[in-house]
Amino acid sequence: MSEGAILVVEENDPVLETDFMKEMVKQMRSLDMYDTYEGWSEAKILDPFVMTKERKREMPVIGDPDEIIISRIKAFYNAISTLIEKECKLMAVPLVNLSHEGFGRVIISTGKLIVVDKVLRDVHRFGFKSLSKMKDDADKLLSVALEIIGKYPDVAGM
Amino acid sequence: MSEGAILVVEENDPVLETDFMKEMVKQMRSLDMYDTYEGWSEAKILDPFVMTKERKREMPVIGDPDEIIISRIKAFYNAISTLIEKECKLMAVPLVNLSHEGFGRVIISTGKLIVVDKVLRDVHRFGFKSLSKMKDDADKLLSVALEIIGKYPDVAGM
Repeated sequence: MSEGAILVVEENDPVLETDFMKEMVKQMRSLDMYDTYEGWSEAKILDPFVMTKERKREMPVIGDPDEIIISRIKAFYNAISTLIEKECKLMAVPLVNLSHEGFGRVIISTGKLIVVDKVLRDVHRFGFKSLSKMKDDADKLLSVALEIIGKYPDVAGM
Repeated sequence: MSEGAILVVEENDPVLETDFMKEMVKQMRSLDMYDTYEGWSEAKILDPFVMTKERKREMPVIGDPDEIIISRIKAFYNAISTLIEKECKLMAVPLVNLSHEGFGRVIISTGKLIVVDKVLRDVHRFGFKSLSKMKDDADKLLSVALEIIGKYPDVAGM
């Protein structure tokens, strides 16, 4: 995804107005050490999260994830952690563990409770069909997390 | 710790007969891809886990952990996971996450329950004052883990 690449996210996509996408933009900006995103629109910052068929086709089938991809994965799970915190007022800690072959495991814990536990594959092609799909996936993770916390508040508060 | 280094673990140290140390040797052998330990005694295999003052003095204060140290840390937490499994008949999964600066976090989970959660510092100098101290530390982690599992068996079985 070079600077000159064609954007697939539209500037006025209403999904950009959701809490999750606003948090995503915040996370991406906080990981942006060199102010690369200075002056960028939200659509442009989140655009690389959309992995269309065409974009996928341009990528190697097997590859090592680079720093940029890893920071995107962290931003995604950081954003989910932040939303969990907002909802349940308990600290949620993400842990992203990647092996060199592009496999990995992500967990988010609240107290002693694992509220998100995901195996990652093909990390170098991390992305979603559309921003709406990304928000759907995040919503699902969030609702499962909140359900587990609701069921075991003691463990989540440990 | 080169091949020619003086061993501090004695061949007939009774701690070598404990379940934990036998499991440690098994873990070390299973991580030994190149049969380096062929013909080595248990004392010799476990010797590098002892970090005496003299050995510590020889190491840099700050350093990046190398593959060998990382495999030792994995062996230690794998062994604890195995003992947890033996005691409670539930799968225990270790996750070792190290940053480049030698900091890290280790968790062991059983179901959705985090039964061990440790922050690691100075990973490049990972070790214990003696084998007995190592076994004590392992016993403590094990007993805390089993206590949490006993308290929240539902979460541990999820």
